[in-house]
Amino acid sequence: MGLKETLERLHVIDRESRHLERAMAVLRWDQETYLPEKGVEERSEQLALLEGIAHERLTSPETGRLLSEAGSTTENPGGDEKLPLLEKDFLKVLRRHYDRTILLPRDFVSAAARAGGLSQAAWISARRDNNFSAFLPHLVTMIDFSRQQALYWGYEDNPYDGLLDIYEPGMDACDIAEVFTPLGQRLSALLKKIASRPRPDNTFLNQDFDVESQARFSRDLMKRLGFDCARGRLDVSAHPFTTTLGSDDVRITTRYMPRQVQSGIFSTIHETGHAFYEMDFPGEIRGTCLADGASMGIHESQSRLWENVIGRSRPFCETMLPVLRSYFPGALSLVTIDDFYRAINLVEPSFIRVEADEVSYSLHIILRFDLERELFSGKLDPAELPAAWRRKMKELLGVEPETDTQGVLQDVHWSMGSFGYFPSYALGNLYGLEFWEKLKSDIPGVEKLILEGNFSPIHDWLRDAVYVRGRRLAPPVLLETVTGRSLSAEPFLAYIESKYAGIYGI
Amino acid sequence: MGLKETLERLHVIDRESRHLERAMAVLRWDQETYLPEKGVEERSEQLALLEGIAHERLTSPETGRLLSEAGSTTENPGGDEKLPLLEKDFLKVLRRHYDRTILLPRDFVSAAARAGGLSQAAWISARRDNNFSAFLPHLVTMIDFSRQQALYWGYEDNPYDGLLDIYEPGMDACDIAEVFTPLGQRLSALLKKIASRPRPDNTFLNQDFDVESQARFSRDLMKRLGFDCARGRLDVSAHPFTTTLGSDDVRITTRYMPRQVQSGIFSTIHETGHAFYEMDFPGEIRGTCLADGASMGIHESQSRLWENVIGRSRPFCETMLPVLRSYFPGALSLVTIDDFYRAINLVEPSFIRVEADEVSYSLHIILRFDLERELFSGKLDPAELPAAWRRKMKELLGVEPETDTQGVLQDVHWSMGSFGYFPSYALGNLYGLEFWEKLKSDIPGVEKLILEGNFSPIHDWLRDAVYVRGRRLAPPVLLETVTGRSLSAEPFLAYIESKYAGIYGI
Repeated sequence: MGLKETLERLHVIDRESRHLERAMAVLRWDQETYLPEKGVEERSEQLALLEGIAHERLTSPETGRLLSEAGSTTENPGGDEKLPLLEKDFLKVLRRHYDRTILLPRDFVSAAARAGGLSQAAWISARRDNNFSAFLPHLVTMIDFSRQQALYWGYEDNPYDGLLDIYEPGMDACDIAEVFTPLGQRLSALLKKIASRPRPDNTFLNQDFDVESQARFSRDLMKRLGFDCARGRLDVSAHPFTTTLGSDDVRITTRYMPRQVQSGIFSTIHETGHAFYEMDFPGEIRGTCLADGASMGIHESQSRLWENVIGRSRPFCETMLPVLRSYFPGALSLVTIDDFYRAINLVEPSFIRVEADEVSYSLHIILRFDLERELFSGKLDPAELPAAWRRKMKELLGVEPETDTQGVLQDVHWSMGSFGYFPSYALGNLYGLEFWEKLKSDIPGVEKLILEGNFSPIHDWLRDAVYVRGRRLAPPVLLETVTGRSLSAEPFLAYIESKYAGIYGI
Repeated sequence: MGLKETLERLHVIDRESRHLERAMAVLRWDQETYLPEKGVEERSEQLALLEGIAHERLTSPETGRLLSEAGSTTENPGGDEKLPLLEKDFLKVLRRHYDRTILLPRDFVSAAARAGGLSQAAWISARRDNNFSAFLPHLVTMIDFSRQQALYWGYEDNPYDGLLDIYEPGMDACDIAEVFTPLGQRLSALLKKIASRPRPDNTFLNQDFDVESQARFSRDLMKRLGFDCARGRLDVSAHPFTTTLGSDDVRITTRYMPRQVQSGIFSTIHETGHAFYEMDFPGEIRGTCLADGASMGIHESQSRLWENVIGRSRPFCETMLPVLRSYFPGALSLVTIDDFYRAINLVEPSFIRVEADEVSYSLHIILRFDLERELFSGKLDPAELPAAWRRKMKELLGVEPETDTQGVLQDVHWSMGSFGYFPSYALGNLYGLEFWEKLKSDIPGVEKLILEGNFSPIHDWLRDAVYVRGRRLAPPVLLETVTGRSLSAEPFLAYIESKYAGIYGI
């Protein structure tokens, strides 16, 4: 087989592997949106089978042989020197996926999946009952599985780095700490200043906003932002998410709370930001393993950019409030643009990450990052987590939860063994502002465009800068390529400090 | 490997094969209900891949070897004599599925699928443009594929019997003709009598019935009939259907027409009838290849029984009309039970099968059966179909369509190569009445139960008589076991003649 045929066959394997991934995405999307209550159990079995088939096919001896024939090895994943850059990038990503998968014994993967299922169930009860010790043995098991996974991948010295690398290829704990340290200090300081200022009124957001009208408004809003409903949809689920069921089938979900109209609005904008990334990969990588976000953090940069930097900006309030008023006649007629702007940007330290404002959000992440590092370095005994959590909360946010349900038990991630995932959420804030600063210098007057509801130039810029590259570049390389800079918390902090100084008159 | 282990492994293969089937059902259901417009193309590729994987796994050398080890051969599909009856039935069905699949070369299956796709697309345009000759070459191709398929299965002498056997195992064209002949004669005669009587008024069904309220009514109705929404759902699609996505996940779809309220009502009841069958297989066959309808005709007996025999009965009108009125205040206040009963049972020969009333429906089927037989025996040249269609319509129904769009081009089935499928629709009417007669003699006063909206005794009877057996028995054996009789058109004809004599005062 010549090099050309080898590559063609690898592309077929990759394409089929994507088709299987997306078929699974259909089953999971359905599970979160429309699956009848009693269908859950069998759905898990269907998914487990498809997972197994996908694993088997990707790690078949044929894949390994073809990768070698194309010159791709673990040390030189890009393969043969003569190949065009696009093919080298393709081989790199496929090789990484292959190596990651084949290094984990099948029995280990099944055992981890089974333990994860039990652990999640235990977490649900433990959170409900505020009973950390009931969850502790499962947590210990999941930490062990994760550590073992990192060992299989060769991270003997720093297993936590192996886990971080799943979500942010090319970054380790030291890289992250370097940006998180100034971030934590300055956000904490800002929080203290804000706490000393008068609290803006936001009670008008807690009127009774009929859910049907909220849903119609969300659909209108996503279309105004540029979402193409011939290539995706919006549905409702308990936890909002974005998922790709096909190159032309990207779906988002949201949730509506009758007395918190902002919840549905901003989760819709957030997921719409994720969807734009998934919808606009260029034709040359469409349907391949390169048509994916560069990392979880880069993906999150897109959602948080649309949600916060654009969606919670004053010009956006100015264009959106009249539309919102038209869906809820009377309810907001006495609310000014400034009232609305201040209300949706209310800063208040709270216990729950997913409800946190823009200023305190990253502090919730830093707390989790610090604890994860200590857990995996052996400095922190899992049994000590609740106390460590309260101590850190006090230190970073100045508040202390009374229960573990509101503290260490609030997130699902650890119960699933997703250690190393949290940092990406805060990195998303930082990447987002790095991109935004460059975008602003390339598109002068972007605030005016937002005010006019004209988002096309923003779309075009993000597409040409970020989406076009898919996951061809590791996040640090992508950032350097787009902005000429390396990652820093400075742009994000400058944005946050200036915005909230304005709102709170600091 | 001992017999026990062999069977266990065959059960695993069967279970996984069902999981794959059901995963595909999720993808197809989604395609008909919620898939964004531009997602269709990639969805076909996902389905084609899953089809290929399912085919590969079922026909693996391992399956063949295990079947032989269990003593199952094509001649003796039930396997080893010592096996319990349930296992023998399991082996029979699995062997049939295996033989049917493995006898078709993979290339033939792909070529037929590809031709079917082109043919369906050509049919859509031909129907739109009333242009039979544009469709003709595709039709000829699909007939050839179907004939070839029957040859692969060994039906050299009567290929049409091989196709009928897909849908009605154990019945051939002669068996069917034996019941269709008296059916056609007496229904035609009845139609003529009805035509001479005054036409009941049904115009009040054509008021503007708001679609949202229709949807709420349908949901209410299906629950009143006994549909468990924790184990299924109702959605909307262009063509109503029932699909099983899991043992506890059976979904139906319907469609609502603003000015034909009866359309949504009766398609909901029809699909609910199909769903009951799928939802109530007993635990011992749950999740196996035995948990399926005995045949297409037996399945149709359930849907048509609920739709027509129960749903269009006078006692049902009496219990349903007040509920319907409550969803459409004012619209039906002057309509009496008798007005309503006569309107939903209006008999009028028409060109379109799916819109046909209970009396003329089977005549549309007989027409198709006669033409299919002649096509596959070589007596009828496909090019002559439009003329033959018109002639038969005149003969059976007394009307003649002016266009092929309203005639030979109306159904999708032939474009997909589904020859031999149509008879099951009319057989469903006949099976349904055979079961119903027995049910009535076992449950005296069933009309009173319907009047009270108490459907549990009917459910229990159908479950214990029909559903409990899944597809363990071939339709003729099932019928004999339940009713002690062999198939005849008599019960159906007696029911129809008596019902419509009453309505039309004949």
